[in-house]
Amino acid sequence: MGKIETCLSPELIHLYNIREKNIVIVDIFRATSTIISALANGVSQIIPFSNLEDCRAMQSQGYIIAGERDGRKADGFELGNSPIAFLNGNYSGKKIAMTTTNGTLAIEKSKEGANNIIIGSFLNLEALSQYLITKEQDVLILCAGWKGKFNLEDSLFAGALANGLKNFFSTDCDTTIALENLYDCHKENLKKIISLASHTKRLQNENLEKDIDFCLIPNKYSTIGIFNQDSIKSIQG
Amino acid sequence: MGKIETCLSPELIHLYNIREKNIVIVDIFRATSTIISALANGVSQIIPFSNLEDCRAMQSQGYIIAGERDGRKADGFELGNSPIAFLNGNYSGKKIAMTTTNGTLAIEKSKEGANNIIIGSFLNLEALSQYLITKEQDVLILCAGWKGKFNLEDSLFAGALANGLKNFFSTDCDTTIALENLYDCHKENLKKIISLASHTKRLQNENLEKDIDFCLIPNKYSTIGIFNQDSIKSIQG
Repeated sequence: MGKIETCLSPELIHLYNIREKNIVIVDIFRATSTIISALANGVSQIIPFSNLEDCRAMQSQGYIIAGERDGRKADGFELGNSPIAFLNGNYSGKKIAMTTTNGTLAIEKSKEGANNIIIGSFLNLEALSQYLITKEQDVLILCAGWKGKFNLEDSLFAGALANGLKNFFSTDCDTTIALENLYDCHKENLKKIISLASHTKRLQNENLEKDIDFCLIPNKYSTIGIFNQDSIKSIQG
Repeated sequence: MGKIETCLSPELIHLYNIREKNIVIVDIFRATSTIISALANGVSQIIPFSNLEDCRAMQSQGYIIAGERDGRKADGFELGNSPIAFLNGNYSGKKIAMTTTNGTLAIEKSKEGANNIIIGSFLNLEALSQYLITKEQDVLILCAGWKGKFNLEDSLFAGALANGLKNFFSTDCDTTIALENLYDCHKENLKKIISLASHTKRLQNENLEKDIDFCLIPNKYSTIGIFNQDSIKSIQG
């Protein structure tokens, strides 16, 4: 039986052994939700960048550039970080270069040594759970958090994923136990507790309530997003 | 109205502004529980050390030396890290030099700039809450965790303290919101969820079940422990 662990922030990743593990990257508001929405709506690949200028430079190579800082679209970028932008199919077949405040940094920190880097979101929760169960390898959930700190929405997703995996994986990780219990207490009304999160308020102040609601839809897509050789592609859906 | 925040590990403390705040150090199993028990049972002062040898050297200066690593009494130390050792009054009036795996390091990391460093435990929860309410200063709860990682018992204590303070302090800290909710779900049977914690199992393997039960007794003492000028003393009780 594989084991499951959760790391609450990229700032703590050095405390975990990531070798030979399936790392699930979680940035619910909004990077990983946006990546799954993009792939499910026909985007062919996404290259994540932690640095804004490196990302911007990809425009000259035919990439659509998506850039966000502190919840807002970065200057001069075609796209920000909204999962809704892909729903009309305008980006089907396109390649995206993407940089966000937290999510792309979390991917960057997992690059060395992980077995697979897999994108986690409520949008593909059930498909992701099935994928991990089939793989039978140890799982490490890495929450992107907010500028190094714990955040509520990534943590509740970690709890939801741990809840779905608990009959198939064992854990001796206190973080996973706590978050699975927190999710279990609030699963009937996740929006209520997530409405208390600091990033929810930040997005509401930017009139991004629609994005919040979209990111919390469970199991809309069956797409699995895998980071491999510098880009994220869909292997399903 | 003062604000309340929670830091889940000394590894994340650099992300917080500790100036002008009351920092509550939490290491439920067992350092901060042991400190409160010691002070409540007449110990005159406790000097915390992060380093084992620095602590040992205090023996020649008339201190009782207490040392623990990985849950076990360190070689050559008179005391380990058990709160029960003080109940018979044998150490009344004595001075203790103490080093533990996590708790004393958390104190070390808070030394620079905090307004007050205050010892947190279930044993003095109600008295501590009243003290913080009276002070009307911003509060930062610092969980000692386990070797840099989140742990369940410190986090649940943080949730319990946040729960007691919530009518008197505001928060925009996701960690505090999550832990207050987790505590609220489990307050009727804290032992049940804490029995799942990795450190509970570690202590049970060392036959320290009595210590676990003792550390979870709420409001046994009214002692407040304050770290000031390198030592912890009681200001009440």
